[in-house]
Amino acid sequence: MLEIEVKARIDSIPAVEARILELGGEFRKEVIEVDVYYNHPNRDFAETDEAIRLRRVEDMVFLTYKGPKIDRHTKTREEFNLKVDSWDNSTSILRALGFTEVMPVKKRRRYLRLEEFEIMLDYLEGLGSFIEVEMKGDYKPDALFDFLRELGVEGSETRSYLELVLEKQGKLK
Amino acid sequence: MLEIEVKARIDSIPAVEARILELGGEFRKEVIEVDVYYNHPNRDFAETDEAIRLRRVEDMVFLTYKGPKIDRHTKTREEFNLKVDSWDNSTSILRALGFTEVMPVKKRRRYLRLEEFEIMLDYLEGLGSFIEVEMKGDYKPDALFDFLRELGVEGSETRSYLELVLEKQGKLK
Repeated sequence: MLEIEVKARIDSIPAVEARILELGGEFRKEVIEVDVYYNHPNRDFAETDEAIRLRRVEDMVFLTYKGPKIDRHTKTREEFNLKVDSWDNSTSILRALGFTEVMPVKKRRRYLRLEEFEIMLDYLEGLGSFIEVEMKGDYKPDALFDFLRELGVEGSETRSYLELVLEKQGKLK
Repeated sequence: MLEIEVKARIDSIPAVEARILELGGEFRKEVIEVDVYYNHPNRDFAETDEAIRLRRVEDMVFLTYKGPKIDRHTKTREEFNLKVDSWDNSTSILRALGFTEVMPVKKRRRYLRLEEFEIMLDYLEGLGSFIEVEMKGDYKPDALFDFLRELGVEGSETRSYLELVLEKQGKLK
């Protein structure tokens, strides 16, 4: 399954959210997501542009593989997602196989929906506010950028939160 | 969690099962289990004596890591077990990470229980019949061997089904 997604930095989550609701969107839920990224035992994921991520959302845990980005303007990637029944056992298996923890990334995420768009408004302490918009299925990046413009959002951030956190800490060149 | 387990070859599943029921054991269920073992992208699990296994039992899927055996007489290992929600996505993640499929192993498994013993009576086509007895918790291999003797079962098979299948096919030296 391809995940077609754009991300952009925003100044104010309430302002963007108000605009989405005006356009007929609906608020769905707010969650705290904790992600731990891992590096591969013999591939440098920072170079191959892949990722393995363990995510906790309330009492649910997901293990996700993300392949390299397939274009330069969006964050579209091949993605395989697995719901698992234990954070601790997932961690133990990854460690036993030689995967190493890179860094935890914690965010507050508000989910909204408007027509075919899944919208996420994210706040990360020390990093600021972001919007992510996702479409499943057909590959139509233009529709995503048109939608962002309608919201008054400019630009596109193709770096992952992990990369942004590492850059801010001076750990990524 | 340590898994303390012995395995032995038996001539007849019905005869051993009758003896277990005589001793007060109870039959719990019969299932078909399909296991696919994987090798690590840069470690030879046949040498390190580890295993990663994807198991399907009816509509459930489990991803399991097994560490090296920690004694020579039983099959005791460190084991981490994860219930996952998709066989296909598990396969895709393992392949994307560079794990390679070794071989599927299919068996008919009858579960019985007697006091602290979890008993499995396995039939594998082309390989024959086996009993596995497991205890969770305290490390008491003697209790396991005493119990096997009570059932009239001799000997211990420390090789995995995967190893036995590969040996039979002449793929393991």
